[in-house]
Amino acid sequence: MLYFQSDYIEGAHESLLKRLMETNLEPLSGYGEDKYCESAKKKIRAAVGYPNAAVSFLVGGTQTNSTIISAMLSNYHGVIATTDGHIFVHEAGAIEHSGHKVLTLPSHNGKMDADELADYLETFYADPTYEHCVIPGMVYISHPTEFGTLYSKAELQALDRVCAQYEIPLFLDGARLGYGLMSNQTDVTLKDIADTCDVFYIGGTKVGALCGEAVVFPGGKLPTHFTTTIKQQGALLAKGRVLGVQFDTLFTDDLYFKISKHAINMAEKLKDMFAKKGYSFYMDSPTNQQFIILENSKYEELKKEVCMSFWCKYDDNHTVVRFCTSWATTEEKLEELDKLL
Amino acid sequence: MLYFQSDYIEGAHESLLKRLMETNLEPLSGYGEDKYCESAKKKIRAAVGYPNAAVSFLVGGTQTNSTIISAMLSNYHGVIATTDGHIFVHEAGAIEHSGHKVLTLPSHNGKMDADELADYLETFYADPTYEHCVIPGMVYISHPTEFGTLYSKAELQALDRVCAQYEIPLFLDGARLGYGLMSNQTDVTLKDIADTCDVFYIGGTKVGALCGEAVVFPGGKLPTHFTTTIKQQGALLAKGRVLGVQFDTLFTDDLYFKISKHAINMAEKLKDMFAKKGYSFYMDSPTNQQFIILENSKYEELKKEVCMSFWCKYDDNHTVVRFCTSWATTEEKLEELDKLL
Amino acid sequence: MLYFQSDYIEGAHESLLKRLMETNLEPLSGYGEDKYCESAKKKIRAAVGYPNAAVSFLVGGTQTNSTIISAMLSNYHGVIATTDGHIFVHEAGAIEHSGHKVLTLPSHNGKMDADELADYLETFYADPTYEHCVIPGMVYISHPTEFGTLYSKAELQALDRVCAQYEIPLFLDGARLGYGLMSNQTDVTLKDIADTCDVFYIGGTKVGALCGEAVVFPGGKLPTHFTTTIKQQGALLAKGRVLGVQFDTLFTDDLYFKISKHAINMAEKLKDMFAKKGYSFYMDSPTNQQFIILENSKYEELKKEVCMSFWCKYDDNHTVVRFCTSWATTEEKLEELDKLL
Amino acid sequence: MLYFQSDYIEGAHESLLKRLMETNLEPLSGYGEDKYCESAKKKIRAAVGYPNAAVSFLVGGTQTNSTIISAMLSNYHGVIATTDGHIFVHEAGAIEHSGHKVLTLPSHNGKMDADELADYLETFYADPTYEHCVIPGMVYISHPTEFGTLYSKAELQALDRVCAQYEIPLFLDGARLGYGLMSNQTDVTLKDIADTCDVFYIGGTKVGALCGEAVVFPGGKLPTHFTTTIKQQGALLAKGRVLGVQFDTLFTDDLYFKISKHAINMAEKLKDMFAKKGYSFYMDSPTNQQFIILENSKYEELKKEVCMSFWCKYDDNHTVVRFCTSWATTEEKLEELDKLL
Repeated sequence: MLYFQSDYIEGAHESLLKRLMETNLEPLSGYGEDKYCESAKKKIRAAVGYPNAAVSFLVGGTQTNSTIISAMLSNYHGVIATTDGHIFVHEAGAIEHSGHKVLTLPSHNGKMDADELADYLETFYADPTYEHCVIPGMVYISHPTEFGTLYSKAELQALDRVCAQYEIPLFLDGARLGYGLMSNQTDVTLKDIADTCDVFYIGGTKVGALCGEAVVFPGGKLPTHFTTTIKQQGALLAKGRVLGVQFDTLFTDDLYFKISKHAINMAEKLKDMFAKKGYSFYMDSPTNQQFIILENSKYEELKKEVCMSFWCKYDDNHTVVRFCTSWATTEEKLEELDKLL
Repeated sequence: MLYFQSDYIEGAHESLLKRLMETNLEPLSGYGEDKYCESAKKKIRAAVGYPNAAVSFLVGGTQTNSTIISAMLSNYHGVIATTDGHIFVHEAGAIEHSGHKVLTLPSHNGKMDADELADYLETFYADPTYEHCVIPGMVYISHPTEFGTLYSKAELQALDRVCAQYEIPLFLDGARLGYGLMSNQTDVTLKDIADTCDVFYIGGTKVGALCGEAVVFPGGKLPTHFTTTIKQQGALLAKGRVLGVQFDTLFTDDLYFKISKHAINMAEKLKDMFAKKGYSFYMDSPTNQQFIILENSKYEELKKEVCMSFWCKYDDNHTVVRFCTSWATTEEKLEELDKLL
Repeated sequence: MLYFQSDYIEGAHESLLKRLMETNLEPLSGYGEDKYCESAKKKIRAAVGYPNAAVSFLVGGTQTNSTIISAMLSNYHGVIATTDGHIFVHEAGAIEHSGHKVLTLPSHNGKMDADELADYLETFYADPTYEHCVIPGMVYISHPTEFGTLYSKAELQALDRVCAQYEIPLFLDGARLGYGLMSNQTDVTLKDIADTCDVFYIGGTKVGALCGEAVVFPGGKLPTHFTTTIKQQGALLAKGRVLGVQFDTLFTDDLYFKISKHAINMAEKLKDMFAKKGYSFYMDSPTNQQFIILENSKYEELKKEVCMSFWCKYDDNHTVVRFCTSWATTEEKLEELDKLL
Repeated sequence: MLYFQSDYIEGAHESLLKRLMETNLEPLSGYGEDKYCESAKKKIRAAVGYPNAAVSFLVGGTQTNSTIISAMLSNYHGVIATTDGHIFVHEAGAIEHSGHKVLTLPSHNGKMDADELADYLETFYADPTYEHCVIPGMVYISHPTEFGTLYSKAELQALDRVCAQYEIPLFLDGARLGYGLMSNQTDVTLKDIADTCDVFYIGGTKVGALCGEAVVFPGGKLPTHFTTTIKQQGALLAKGRVLGVQFDTLFTDDLYFKISKHAINMAEKLKDMFAKKGYSFYMDSPTNQQFIILENSKYEELKKEVCMSFWCKYDDNHTVVRFCTSWATTEEKLEELDKLL
């Protein structure tokens, strides 16, 4: 059986496990106040090009989204996302459980359009009864998006300008950030993200770690009493070292970028493989998630030997499936897949 | 420097790390639907003596408390705890953030008294306007308690009887459960806990794991849509294997019990050591947390070479400190401490 | 100046104020446990044709919506509404503040389509990962809708069938219910609503009362500890008599229906008036809200002498405005308006 | 039968009902944007001696408490009250439903002690792990308290000083404020309350209105998007006129103070009556609530002809009951009671 259904089917990059082993018996303070967290933060600050950035480690994506949103919004605020935003669709109401509405704008292959955002905000405040509605208090985007697509630098800057005009923070969910940064088709660097976003996170869970997301506030200020909010969200890991050691390793010798680049290379191969065999793509994804249109009969046949994700029905005779590569994908597995196709 | 400040200063028991290494590259389903989670559940069901028990893995204590409470209470319900209950004091309002009040009863060295519980409930329902108040919907206890003390089997049974009479579930926070079960001064087995509690958890974070708490519903039924609640709480780990592999290892060859017993043995030695030197104890703890009364000058002196937890002021001249042993405490370290005292 | 901007610009029908006066000094129990509430409930049960219906009085619409939703949903539940549903758009996030997501379906002039609802639910449960999403736990509709439109009896029955199949309650927001029931173009009776809905409310605020909404559970059972939920929502009026006396009067001698009928008659006149003068309607509303398309210049001119609600821009040269009639609209005012047009 | 069980057993002072009648058919804007609300605000600003105070009208006490607390606290904040504070005991978890913990200090006949508050805050911030706990974000007191007792001016000033030092707002629940201000045993004026509190409300429901509480921010600034919070709490009355007209009347010609004074006079008579007959008082209340200790046999006898509130058991043979006077209490009724005793 071949496994391409997601980018979190293996454990962690072995360097991370080794470091966990090596440091295992060192007595360390809990709750993220250990030297590995400190060291990881320093390296991340350097990587993002903001030496005073505030960095914090959390365990998983949904948790990180709801913690950041809860910390940065007031009770009357909602958060703007696209209609296919992860927080709107796939987080079991975590944001609403924290008391906040997710306000939606159209999705353009997963992306939010800055002009549509500006229109929305202008129209919102033009209504004299707007205070009867949820006040937009944050913009949430993901990069790569749910569809593996990427914002251009100009698009991020345009969103940033609108947010700045309305004084609402721009929050970028980077659960798969490495794969976005290492794409062959991006002009966006980690520094660009820090330049344009008020807060973002560098995903570990899907990029080589057992778990862990590194939240970055480039401006250098954590939200007031952020530790309390993290604890309140059940997100304060007692053994913060688990996150610190992993991110410290990921940001040593560019490991995070190297393994992301590997996944991109594997994705490009996979793409070529499918393209050469005449398969069509549901959309052009420049990252590690590839969306292929399969004839239903082919899908049924392939399912016997390949795990992939059902994405949606394309038409009565075709199905869209998702193939993911990751830091762990090997050339051998791709070759096996090639033979199967 | 010697480190006795808590039972989560080291990483994980090395068997767990080894298993994480060995299984690292196996492709597995996410979100706890892998074979290691399945295997761990089977072993836990056997260990608790309830072959049909429902088991679920979460990451940390506060998260587990708020997930269980959110899943089992209705909007009008509160949860009863003692005034020093972890959920009341040290969880940054996580329970209230989920919309539920923590109702309090007096603490007897960390324990709730069944008669006082019965009185409270009788008085509550005797008030004709009780519906203007939060309805008691669950009883929360911890075992060991915040003070390392333990319920007797008879005490658990008494609490169970009161809960049964009022049809409210009894929930036992077992963040340090191993240390309670392996105490020399307990008549409570894991089976007894399953017999008396509607839900409890077996703590991993403080008993040898990197992270992880195993929630057990002996009755065999998870709360409706429990996965949704877990996700909503940001507690659904993408790589559920991290929890599955660890608990599978902890419940293989009684590892969980053996390392807990080790911690108890170390605690007994530490206790003797202090007692022989004439130190007094703030309370008699039968588990891995020991509360010692130090003269302030001694405390200041000792602090230079030993990490311990400040607990409270005893009087103007004395301070109460906590020493913890754990699965990782070694005889050598105890001997070094002995020399210092 | 003429006032047609809404149906709550006057106080209360004078019979209600008179009864408040007459009963003012009678000492009565608080919190809705007085004889006028009791009498009003009895009359409402008779009017809906369910002698065992459970009835409860709340103060206003948003409050009633969030109280009912909070009482009937579990933490993992969301409520399905159309994209223009009042709870989705105009309640400042009250539902999300209670922890619940509003799930949306397309609006057909304010109405939900039963087939689309069935499709949505079927698709939802067909996804094997549906537990990562908010579970649909209720269907919310309003009748009349935000656009003054009405469900037919067959449409309500169709929604009821889908809800029954999925065992989710159907909740009808009847803030303007009287105007719906008395429309010339409806085949829906109050009994039909009780037959098809699990819970609904009979609006008082917009139909002759100072304030007040009568919630009806035709099945006869209030949600568990409903009083506690009402209190928790800040919706338990100390002087429940204010609501009891008003609804008792509204349901004496069919006053509620008579004053609603009057508003409908006035709306029909107003409609004729506009139609005869060649104005177009934005949509065909069979109730007390009429949506007229005005040339912008006409709109500006009219604004000087008539209060109406801006609804939306129709095109660059036209504006849609809303005219409301109510129990308080007089023939004289209509004639004055006629002259102006 | 005689009725003394509470101060909300009658409707409204008849001047208020008359004004509601007189203004009933005037077309007015909704949601508190009418001229009567405006006029009432102006009069209240004058009465409190803060011409720039911000004033807002809500419907009832629990609603007002949870709206103010929700508006002024951040997610990590709790509100400090005494153990018998209304928000802690009698509001069905409304505050926790909004996500906030109620932190408690001892009650001294219903009052909070400024020194204990200072100690609590000092101790709280001295704990280096305080961010694991709910951050104190507001102090809530009531005046009169649940026991009818009153703060002295010096006591209010002392609380104010502590709050100012820690930069947390002081919030005074004045559900029965009139009865406190008109007590014979107070040195506190309405201006003093405005001088010392950051926000307070002037209760209408228990002091002559059908419903309504006037919230005052002496500093002149409403919390950001307060209208949105009010709406979110289901507390935005469509016909705001109902509150505006009533408060406008209450603050015309000192009606609020005159009817409060009347209640105090009646309470003093009642007190004398009981005292002369040799009854003991559970505590010395200077306001309209009087707590009398009755022999159980006397209580049973009296219950047949007098409605009073059961307060608590005093001992096996005695019961504490509450008698309330109000704006509506007449001398005749007191004389009838006198005869019965």
